[in-house]
Amino acid sequence: MARELAQWSELPEGLMCTYFSPAHKAVAAQLRDWMRAAGLQAQIDPVGNVIGRYASAAPAAKTLLIGSHYDTVANAGQFDGRLGILTAIVVVGHLQRTGRQLPFHVEVIGFSEEEGVRFSAPYLGSGAIAGRFDESALARRDADDVSLATVLRKEGVGLDTIQALARRPDTLRGYLEVHIEQGPVLLQKNLPVGIVTSISGSARYRVTVQGVAGHAGTVPMPLRRDAAAAAAEIVLAVERRCRASENLVGTVGQLSVPHGLINVIPGSCELSLDIRSVDDSTRNAAVHDILAAIEEITGRRRVTAAVREVARHRAVPCAPAMQSAIAQAIARAGMEPFYLPSGAGHDAEMFAGLTDIGMLFVRCGNGGISHSPLETVTADDADTGARVLLDVLGNLS
Amino acid sequence: MARELAQWSELPEGLMCTYFSPAHKAVAAQLRDWMRAAGLQAQIDPVGNVIGRYASAAPAAKTLLIGSHYDTVANAGQFDGRLGILTAIVVVGHLQRTGRQLPFHVEVIGFSEEEGVRFSAPYLGSGAIAGRFDESALARRDADDVSLATVLRKEGVGLDTIQALARRPDTLRGYLEVHIEQGPVLLQKNLPVGIVTSISGSARYRVTVQGVAGHAGTVPMPLRRDAAAAAAEIVLAVERRCRASENLVGTVGQLSVPHGLINVIPGSCELSLDIRSVDDSTRNAAVHDILAAIEEITGRRRVTAAVREVARHRAVPCAPAMQSAIAQAIARAGMEPFYLPSGAGHDAEMFAGLTDIGMLFVRCGNGGISHSPLETVTADDADTGARVLLDVLGNLS
Repeated sequence: MARELAQWSELPEGLMCTYFSPAHKAVAAQLRDWMRAAGLQAQIDPVGNVIGRYASAAPAAKTLLIGSHYDTVANAGQFDGRLGILTAIVVVGHLQRTGRQLPFHVEVIGFSEEEGVRFSAPYLGSGAIAGRFDESALARRDADDVSLATVLRKEGVGLDTIQALARRPDTLRGYLEVHIEQGPVLLQKNLPVGIVTSISGSARYRVTVQGVAGHAGTVPMPLRRDAAAAAAEIVLAVERRCRASENLVGTVGQLSVPHGLINVIPGSCELSLDIRSVDDSTRNAAVHDILAAIEEITGRRRVTAAVREVARHRAVPCAPAMQSAIAQAIARAGMEPFYLPSGAGHDAEMFAGLTDIGMLFVRCGNGGISHSPLETVTADDADTGARVLLDVLGNLS
Repeated sequence: MARELAQWSELPEGLMCTYFSPAHKAVAAQLRDWMRAAGLQAQIDPVGNVIGRYASAAPAAKTLLIGSHYDTVANAGQFDGRLGILTAIVVVGHLQRTGRQLPFHVEVIGFSEEEGVRFSAPYLGSGAIAGRFDESALARRDADDVSLATVLRKEGVGLDTIQALARRPDTLRGYLEVHIEQGPVLLQKNLPVGIVTSISGSARYRVTVQGVAGHAGTVPMPLRRDAAAAAAEIVLAVERRCRASENLVGTVGQLSVPHGLINVIPGSCELSLDIRSVDDSTRNAAVHDILAAIEEITGRRRVTAAVREVARHRAVPCAPAMQSAIAQAIARAGMEPFYLPSGAGHDAEMFAGLTDIGMLFVRCGNGGISHSPLETVTADDADTGARVLLDVLGNLS
């Protein structure tokens, strides 16, 4: 099914499906049709979320949401986000076919936007349902300089429409999400599924190192103020510091000497920092040390660094009750309940504090590669994820 | 005069004057006119060199060439190359005005092309005069995809015309070049001029490090194969190795993660290497050690590096007799004769092996910055350079 969805893409080769593109709308319609075929009451809401309801016999029951997203990054894998939606459709379809009643309503939601690709603003779909839609995103513009507000207006969607999508917390039983791990931990542990303990917080920075350009042949080494050499030291300092704590990762994903020439000493160098931990104090301590290292390195090398914080998110814990429900289901299936943090952000974050959230990770193949066409999941592992989710639903009060 | 020449540029702000552009032709015409005003028999040759002759009374005498280039890099300084031509015009104009005869003919040459900007092929002007014009350059194309062969054909210049420009070595008395240092050594030594011992050889490489991309939040540090972190180690290894020897410099001028994203572990990273020394064995030893370090770093980090040599030039010594003639003139002016290598390449290289070459460096202001609008030389230092050159000419047999 994920392969079928991947037929709709904005790229001739490779998968890309961003907010309200033609590919995106085609995927939404297909998800709605599959939900209906599975016996759910399905519709696409004004912001593009595909919602399929499986009602409880008790009309006053609360609602359990099971969601993930169907938008993608550029040149994406087929399973990131979509695996969770498809698993939920299969599981709830099975409940429907077997006439199994639950003490709560279930709504399967394919969120329209999580990756933040088109408007550099993530969680547009889940944010609306959670009542946490980021209004400042309306002014953001896509690569064609069209604002999100303009796109929504063309769809006939105003801010009041979006606000009306918000669920009242007291109507919710909880939020569950199945997601491909997007990393190699389960693969290394030789386990098909794992229980997410929390979603890491992150701090992001952009750093511009300013040195002094010079002729590569004429400036003796001791007299140089090479911006790229200072940046290289920063890259290694980030790596060293983040290796020193467990549950901590740090990445310099962007690194470049603007207009660099083979025979010119770099006068400036730009780099990005992304520091994450499931524990906010661990992350804050690392950020503190890394910023201090940048100061030490640039001072010693007689260059300067402009450091700009571009994002900061707190870590979000999964509810102990949901972790325990998932762990019990995994144990009942004869597997080891293995707990791991999520380094990536997920739609589940939007519901933290509103209702109990729980996440089940499914093993990522190919060394754990994600955000890449090489992303894979085996049919067996996807099946295991579905069975665990089914068991969780059957045992949740 | 350098400021006057800088009025002709290909950039609205900043100086750029590349081979056979309108700015380039305007500069050539001005140089020819100034040479004529100084009493030289001046003309522009088919490849754009501006040549001004001051004949000796003895028709069978040999010819001393005094040259430098008038083309520039992008956003260049006003003195790189041009200072040497203008100094020679002033000095030979002085000889003419004072009726001073020399035992050799003098030809002042403003070479049309040394920087290699337009066709990525340097020394087009001096190469033609030296009989070392690089024929493979004819196929090179500029940014508009026009080949050098096409440009020359439009000017009515064939390969035979170029070959006919070559001087017979037995007609040459020597080659002298005055040039701004383009580095901070004379500034640090508090000396206005210096004697060049030799022009450094260089080896250039392009390196592509290939690691494994991954999600910045989900791949634990020990499992990463980060191409940028490996590249950072390479940058610092180059710096460390080149600091370890005198007369050695190494530069990573280009460094970039292609399509890097703030939240993706770099899957690849590209960098350039430029290693130079006045001593070929010093350079070769450094290159050997750096290539070994790249292998060690990439092996340990489980990434790979594709290393491609893109250029290799031997070091070119200046003739001891010319160095001594310049040193004596400096001493006669009451200054310390200070010897230094040239890390940059110069037109003088083209004449090595054909005739005795000698170079006089003039102090570069502003911390030694070159290839930048911040490049400066003081009027006093330029005057000192001219006086030394005049004395050298008067005392050369």
